[in-house]
Amino acid sequence: MATAIPSTPEQLLLELFVIFVTTKLLGEIFERLNLPAVPGEILAGIVLGPYALDWIPATDTLRSVAQIGAIFVLFSAGLETSPRDLIRVSRKALLLSVLGVVAPFVLGFAYMRLRGDTTVEAVFVAAAMVATSIGITARVLADMKILSTRTARIILGAAVFDDVLGMLVLAVVAGLATGEHVHWLHLGVLTGEAEGFALFMMFVAPHIVRQLRPQMEQLSTHNAVLVVALAILLLLSWLAAKIGMAAIVGAFFAGLMFADYAPRWNLIPRVSGLTSFLAPFFFFDIGSRFDTRLVKGSFLTMAIVISLLAILSKVIGCGLPLLREGWPMVLKVGIGMTPRGEVALIVALVGLQSGILGEAAYGIIVLMTVVTTLLAPPILRYLFRCEMREHRDESVPEPVQL
Amino acid sequence: MATAIPSTPEQLLLELFVIFVTTKLLGEIFERLNLPAVPGEILAGIVLGPYALDWIPATDTLRSVAQIGAIFVLFSAGLETSPRDLIRVSRKALLLSVLGVVAPFVLGFAYMRLRGDTTVEAVFVAAAMVATSIGITARVLADMKILSTRTARIILGAAVFDDVLGMLVLAVVAGLATGEHVHWLHLGVLTGEAEGFALFMMFVAPHIVRQLRPQMEQLSTHNAVLVVALAILLLLSWLAAKIGMAAIVGAFFAGLMFADYAPRWNLIPRVSGLTSFLAPFFFFDIGSRFDTRLVKGSFLTMAIVISLLAILSKVIGCGLPLLREGWPMVLKVGIGMTPRGEVALIVALVGLQSGILGEAAYGIIVLMTVVTTLLAPPILRYLFRCEMREHRDESVPEPVQL
Repeated sequence: MATAIPSTPEQLLLELFVIFVTTKLLGEIFERLNLPAVPGEILAGIVLGPYALDWIPATDTLRSVAQIGAIFVLFSAGLETSPRDLIRVSRKALLLSVLGVVAPFVLGFAYMRLRGDTTVEAVFVAAAMVATSIGITARVLADMKILSTRTARIILGAAVFDDVLGMLVLAVVAGLATGEHVHWLHLGVLTGEAEGFALFMMFVAPHIVRQLRPQMEQLSTHNAVLVVALAILLLLSWLAAKIGMAAIVGAFFAGLMFADYAPRWNLIPRVSGLTSFLAPFFFFDIGSRFDTRLVKGSFLTMAIVISLLAILSKVIGCGLPLLREGWPMVLKVGIGMTPRGEVALIVALVGLQSGILGEAAYGIIVLMTVVTTLLAPPILRYLFRCEMREHRDESVPEPVQL
Repeated sequence: MATAIPSTPEQLLLELFVIFVTTKLLGEIFERLNLPAVPGEILAGIVLGPYALDWIPATDTLRSVAQIGAIFVLFSAGLETSPRDLIRVSRKALLLSVLGVVAPFVLGFAYMRLRGDTTVEAVFVAAAMVATSIGITARVLADMKILSTRTARIILGAAVFDDVLGMLVLAVVAGLATGEHVHWLHLGVLTGEAEGFALFMMFVAPHIVRQLRPQMEQLSTHNAVLVVALAILLLLSWLAAKIGMAAIVGAFFAGLMFADYAPRWNLIPRVSGLTSFLAPFFFFDIGSRFDTRLVKGSFLTMAIVISLLAILSKVIGCGLPLLREGWPMVLKVGIGMTPRGEVALIVALVGLQSGILGEAAYGIIVLMTVVTTLLAPPILRYLFRCEMREHRDESVPEPVQL
C-alpha cells in the first residue's frame, strides 16, 4: 500500500479527530451489545480505511502514531502483569500455558504447511495463534463477578504466563522476519536472546527499579517516576527493535519492570490516559490494512479453519490436561483461553510490513482475532451460568490471588 | 528548512528516546539550579537540532508529535484555569491584566516599526510579548510558600486572565497570518470571532458539560469522561485551525470547558501523563528551529532590547497602576507577570511556519521567552525575601483564593 503525501497540520487534526471518535464510538456500541470493544475499534479502521470508504489516507504520521499506540497498549499490559504474581503462579497454570502455546502453534503450522504455504509464512500464522489476550477473558469473568473462583484463577494464571510466552514467540518470529528462510542456528540464537531478555526483565529489572526508587523519588521533574518509566519504555522498545525482536516486546517488559511499583507511584491512571488516547490509532491502523476485497471463497474457508483451529487448540492445550475434573472444566478453561488480541495483531503487522505475509494471510489473522474475541464471551457466559447464579446468592467480594 | 525523508520505525523510536531523555535531563538540571525547566528543554532542541549538532533530523512525524504536544500543553493550561475563578477574579487583577497586555503590545509594535519591519511582522513580535506564562510565576511563589499573600493573589489573578487575553491576541494574529497586509475589516471580524469563541467557551460550554455529565458517567468505555474530553480537544483544535485561529486556542478553551469538573473526574493525573510524555517534543521542536548562526551583533542587540521591553512593559502595565502602594509592590507585580512561555513560543512558530516571521524574528522571540523566564525567578525571590522570612515564622497553610 503506497504512502500518501504528508498532511497539513489542519488535516492531521481532522484525521486524528475522525479516527479517535469513530474508533471509540464503535467500541462503545460493541460494549453496549455486551461484546468486547476491540473488534469494534478494528471495524472502524476497516470501514474508513483505504479499502472501503477511503476517508483516511495512510500517511507516515498516522502510521507512526499507531506504532506509538501499540507500544502503549503493550506497556499497559506489562504494567498489569506483576512479576511477583508470575513467580507465584501455580504449577498447573504454568503447564497449561505452555501446552496452550505449543498446541496452537503446531496445529496452525501443520495446516499452513499442508496447504502449501512457505515455512516462514506458516511460522507467522502459527505464531499469531499462540497468545491469549488476558484482557477480554478477565473482563468477562469480572463482569460475571466470578474472578475469585478456582477456575477463573487457573485461567488468569495461565493467561498471564501465556503473555510472556507469546512475547518470546513474537521476539523469535520477528527476528526471523529479517531472513527469507528459517535457519535453525539463527532460531536457536534468537530463542536464547529472547529468553535471556525475558528472564532478566522478570527477575533482575524489578530489583533495579527498587534500588533506584529513593533517587527517583527525589527528582525535581514533575511526574518524575512516570518520566523515568517512559524513558525506559522508549529505550527498551528501541533496543528490542534494534536486536531484531519487535519493539512491543521491549514495551511489554518495560511495563513488567514497573508493575510491582505501579500502585505505589500511581502509575496506572497516568499511563492509562496515554493508552486511552493512543491505542485507538493502533486498532484503527490494524483495521485499515484489512483488504475487504479478499473476503470471498477460499479466503473465508481458510479464515474459518484457522479460527476453529485457534479455539480447538486452546481447548486441547489448556483444557484437556484437566480432563480428570470433567468436561465442563475442560471447556471453561479452553474457551477462557481462546480470545486472541494485540499480540496476534502485531505478529500480523510485523509479517505484513516485512513482506513475509501476503494481504490474505494478514487478513486471516485479523479475522481470527476478531472471531475468537467475539465468540469467547457469550460461550463463557453460558458455561459459567451456574457459578453466576451461585455467586449472586452468596456474593462476598474477595481479593483475587493467582 | 527542508523536511528529511521519513524515518524507519526503529529510527523513530531512537529519535523519540533521545529527544525525550535529553529534554527531561536538561529540564532536571535547570530545576536543580533553581531555574525553570522550560529553557532547559528548549536548549536540548537547540543543541541536538539541525543548526548545531544535527543529531535529530526534522521529519514530518516528529513535527506532528510536537504539534500534538503543543495541544496538550495548552489543554493542561486550560484545565488548570477554572472559569469560575476567572469570573470571580478581582476588578483590580482584571484591570492589571488588560493593561499588561496593551503595554507590551504597543511597546513591541512601536519598536519593530521604528526599526523598519513590516506591519505584520511587528504585529507578530508584539503579540508574542503579550501573554504571561502563569506556570513559572506560580511555581516560584509556591516554592517560597507565599501563594496566600495578597500580592501573590493579585499576580495570579491577573496572570490567569492574561492567558485568556493572550489566546484572543493569538487567535487574531494567526488569522492575520493568511493575508500579507493587515486589513482593518478582517481584523475586526477576527477579533469578534475570537471574542465570541472565548465567551462561549467560558460561559456556555461548562454548562453543556454539566448537562452531559450524567450521560458521560454512564458510558461503558473505559475512562469514558477522559475519552469525551480528548474527542472535544481534537475537535476544537481542528475547528480553531479551520476558522483561522491557531489550533492551540481551541485546545486551551477545551481545557477551560472541563476545568471545573477536572477534580471530580480525576482528569488532571490522566491528562498530566499525556502532557508529560508529549510536551517535551514541543519544546524540543521550538529549540531545534533556532538558528544558532544568527547569534551575533545586531541580532543580539534586538533580542536584548525586546527582552528589556518585555520586562519593562509588564512593570508599566501591571505594576504602575499600583504605584499608590509603593515601588516594591510595583516591582513585585511587574516582575511576577514577566515570564513568557508557551503562548509566545506558539506565536513565533505560527509566524515562522506561515513565512511572516524570518528566522531572526523567530529567534528573537525564543530568546525573549528564555530571558524573561530565567530572570524572573531570582528577582522574585529577592523582592519577596521579607515575606518569605515572615512566612517561615508564622507559616500556617491557607487555601489560595484568587
